[in-house]
Amino acid sequence: MAELPHVVIIGGGFGGLYAARALRKAKARITLIDRRNHHLFQPLLYQVATAALNPSDIAAPIRSVLRRQKNATVLLAEAQRVDPAAKKVLLDGGDQLSYDWLIVAAGATHSYFGHDEWEPFAPGLKTIEDALEIRRRVLFAFEAAERERDAASRKAWMTFVVVGAGPTGVELAGALAEVSRHTLARDFRHIDPAEARIVLLEGGPRVLPTYPPDLSQKAEAQLRKLGVEVQVGAKVTLIDEAGVQLGDGARLDARTRIWGAGVTASPLGRSLGAPLDRAGRVKVTPRLTVPGHEEIFVIGDLAAVECGGKPVPGVAPAAMQGGAYAGRAVARLLVDASKPLEPFRYWDKGSLATIGRSAAVADFGRVKLSGFIAWAAWLLVHILYLIGFRNRILVLVEWAWAYVTFQRGARLITGAEQARLAERRDRDKPAA
Amino acid sequence: MAELPHVVIIGGGFGGLYAARALRKAKARITLIDRRNHHLFQPLLYQVATAALNPSDIAAPIRSVLRRQKNATVLLAEAQRVDPAAKKVLLDGGDQLSYDWLIVAAGATHSYFGHDEWEPFAPGLKTIEDALEIRRRVLFAFEAAERERDAASRKAWMTFVVVGAGPTGVELAGALAEVSRHTLARDFRHIDPAEARIVLLEGGPRVLPTYPPDLSQKAEAQLRKLGVEVQVGAKVTLIDEAGVQLGDGARLDARTRIWGAGVTASPLGRSLGAPLDRAGRVKVTPRLTVPGHEEIFVIGDLAAVECGGKPVPGVAPAAMQGGAYAGRAVARLLVDASKPLEPFRYWDKGSLATIGRSAAVADFGRVKLSGFIAWAAWLLVHILYLIGFRNRILVLVEWAWAYVTFQRGARLITGAEQARLAERRDRDKPAA
Repeated sequence: MAELPHVVIIGGGFGGLYAARALRKAKARITLIDRRNHHLFQPLLYQVATAALNPSDIAAPIRSVLRRQKNATVLLAEAQRVDPAAKKVLLDGGDQLSYDWLIVAAGATHSYFGHDEWEPFAPGLKTIEDALEIRRRVLFAFEAAERERDAASRKAWMTFVVVGAGPTGVELAGALAEVSRHTLARDFRHIDPAEARIVLLEGGPRVLPTYPPDLSQKAEAQLRKLGVEVQVGAKVTLIDEAGVQLGDGARLDARTRIWGAGVTASPLGRSLGAPLDRAGRVKVTPRLTVPGHEEIFVIGDLAAVECGGKPVPGVAPAAMQGGAYAGRAVARLLVDASKPLEPFRYWDKGSLATIGRSAAVADFGRVKLSGFIAWAAWLLVHILYLIGFRNRILVLVEWAWAYVTFQRGARLITGAEQARLAERRDRDKPAA
Repeated sequence: MAELPHVVIIGGGFGGLYAARALRKAKARITLIDRRNHHLFQPLLYQVATAALNPSDIAAPIRSVLRRQKNATVLLAEAQRVDPAAKKVLLDGGDQLSYDWLIVAAGATHSYFGHDEWEPFAPGLKTIEDALEIRRRVLFAFEAAERERDAASRKAWMTFVVVGAGPTGVELAGALAEVSRHTLARDFRHIDPAEARIVLLEGGPRVLPTYPPDLSQKAEAQLRKLGVEVQVGAKVTLIDEAGVQLGDGARLDARTRIWGAGVTASPLGRSLGAPLDRAGRVKVTPRLTVPGHEEIFVIGDLAAVECGGKPVPGVAPAAMQGGAYAGRAVARLLVDASKPLEPFRYWDKGSLATIGRSAAVADFGRVKLSGFIAWAAWLLVHILYLIGFRNRILVLVEWAWAYVTFQRGARLITGAEQARLAERRDRDKPAA
C-alpha cells in the first residue's frame, strides 16, 4: 500500500484547528505544527491581562483538542521557512517535513510601525506571556503607588495608557477601569485605586474605527461612563519608561503603558515567494492559495484576500471560515483533483466588542446593539466558541463569581522580575 | 492622641497571616510585608507543577485576604535586614520601617547541601514560578520525545527523576506517574507516555522518613503500584543537564530532574543576632521570641523550637499555630505587659501525604490510615484549609473534573524559554 498523502498545517490557532477538523475523515496523514503546545482563545486574552481569568481557562493543549482525530499528528516545533519548490517545511533544529498539501495559518504579531524600541515600554497582547506580563505590571503599579510617598510619582504609577482604540484597546481600557473602580477599591490604605487615570489614545478620529460611526460614539460614551479618558486624534511620537509623548507636544507621565495599536503578519509568509501587502500578508487567490502553487493554502491573519469587493478582516471568524474552507478543499482535491474549487466566501456574522460590565457594542449589519443586550450577546458568543467543555464551565463560574462580587480571580504578580527579586535574596543565603 | 503601637509582620505565608488575623482586634497599627503579592497554599503547589491546578487556585492576594481587617496594611516589599537594636526593618530601595513588635515569618527555601550548581538542572518547588517551570519541563519532555528519532535520546526525555522522598517528592512522583499513565495516554502518535520512567531517589532507608515505618512501607507499595520506581539508600553525587549520578557509580540518563530533598531557613534570620541551628533556623525561646529581644517573635519554618522534648516540624500546621500564638501574645502584651507569657505548645494533629488517585497515607498518632480513606481525609483537610471561598469551589470543580475524566486542566507550556523562542522569530520580521 502506498503511503497516504501528507497534509501539513502550520499554526494551531483558529484557522489551523478548523482546517484540521475539516480533514478528519480525509484519507491522509495530517501534521499540525505549532511552536506553542496550546491553542489560545485570543478574544479573551485581555481578561487574563486584567486578572479576571486564568491562562488555562482560555488555552487548551492542541494535542488534547485533536486526540480523537487519529489521522492527525501534533508537533511542537517552529516552522522557520517553507520551500515551495521542494515542497518542504524547514523546522527549528534542522528538521524538515515534506508535504503534498500545505495550509499556512501562522497568524500575526504586534507591529510598532517601525518603532520596535517602544516594545519594552508598552507591551502588546498576543500570547499568554504577554498577558501575564501586563497583569504583573498593572497590579505592581498599584502596589508601588501604595508605597510611594512623592505625590507626582504616585500619580505616574496610577496612570495607565492604552495605545490604540481597536477592540483590544477598548476592552483593555474598560477592564482596567473596572479593576481600579471595583476590584481593588477597598484593598489599599494609602491610595484610592478609584483615582487611577485610564487614558485610551487613538490616532484616528474615533474609537473602534472599523465599526459604524454611531456605535463608535456609543462605545466612547460607555467608556467615559466607566471612567476612561478617551483621546482621539492623538498621535504617539515617543514611548519611554516614564510615559508617552504626543504629537501636539503634550506628555503623559504614566508608568504603565499597553500597546494595542497594530499587527503585522508572520514573517513565514515571505518564504512563500508570493506578493505581500503592506502589512506583510500574503496576497492569495480567491481560493486562498498561493499564485502558482495551488497546493499551498494561506488562511487567517496571514492572508490578504477580498470577498464581495471588501477585504476579509483579520478576525477570529474569518480564520475559522478560512480554515474550514481550506480543509474541505484539500479533502475534496484528495478524492478528485479534476473539478475546480469554488472561491472562498466570507460570511460576515457581525462584530462584537465588549467595554465592561453590561457594556458592549454589536454590529450585525442591519441590527446594531449597545449596552446590556450587546453585552449579553457577547457573553453568549464567547462561551459558545470557547474550545473545550471544561473551559466553558470554569469560565462561567469565574464570570458569575466576578459579576456578583466585583472580584477577580487571578490577581497574582508572578513572572521573571518577581522571580529575580526572590533570587537576589536567596543567593544571599548562608552556605548550608 | 498618641500614635498606636506598630506591629510589623514579615511574611504572608501561613505563619504571618495567622499572626495578622490573631491581631484583628488589637489597638495597634499592623504592617504585613511580603515580597510577593500573594499568599501561597504550598501543600498543593505540586498540583500546579503537574498541571492539575492553576496558580490562582492556590494563591490569593494577601491584600485581598486582609481587606476587611482595617488595622492592617499590606506592603509589597522585601525585608532585607532587621536591626534589633534600632527596632527597624530595612527594606529594598533603602526604605525603613520602625516597629514596636516584630513577628518574623520569612520561611525557608531549597537547600542543595552545598551544591547550588545543581539548581538549574533540578529545580525545587517553593514558588509559583518554580511550579510553572517544572510544569513546562515535564510537558516539554513528552513533546521532545514525540519529535526525537534516536531511541536512547527518546528514553532520556521519557525519564523523570525526583530527588528526595519526603512528602513533596512522594506527591510529585505519584502525580507524574498519573500524568504519564492516564492524562497523556492517548495524545501522542510516536511515543507511549505510559512507558515513561519515573524514578524516586531517597538517600535514607525508606520513603517518608518522618512517618512511622509501616506507613512508609505502605506508601512505597502504593507508589510502585502507580508505576513509580523507588530507590532508597540512593546517594546523589552529581546532577547535570544529562542526568543524575549515584554514589554506587550508577548513572540515570534523565532530561527532567526535580529537587525535593532539602530546605534551608531564610537568610533574614541571621540579622536577628540570635544563635542559628544547622539549617539556619533561629533558636528561639519557648515563647518563640529571640533571646534578649522579647519584642521579636520568630515563627514557622524559620524558627527552631522544641515542644514536649521533640522539635516542632517545619509544616503548615506548626506555622499556623505559631502565628496564632505570636499574634495573641502581642495582642495581650499590648494591653498588659506585666503577666509572663505561657510557652508555645504545638498540637500535632497528625501528618498526611498523598500519593495519587485514591492513594495516600495518614498518621494521626494512634490511628494510621492508608489507601482510599487516607486520601479522602487528605482531600477534606486540604479543601478546608484552602484560603478563600472562591478557591475552594474552583479547586473542587477542577478535582471533580480530573477525577472523572483523568484529564488535567492546566497543561500549558509557557514561560521564559517559550517566550524566547517566539521572540527569536518575531525579531526576524520585516520592518513594517
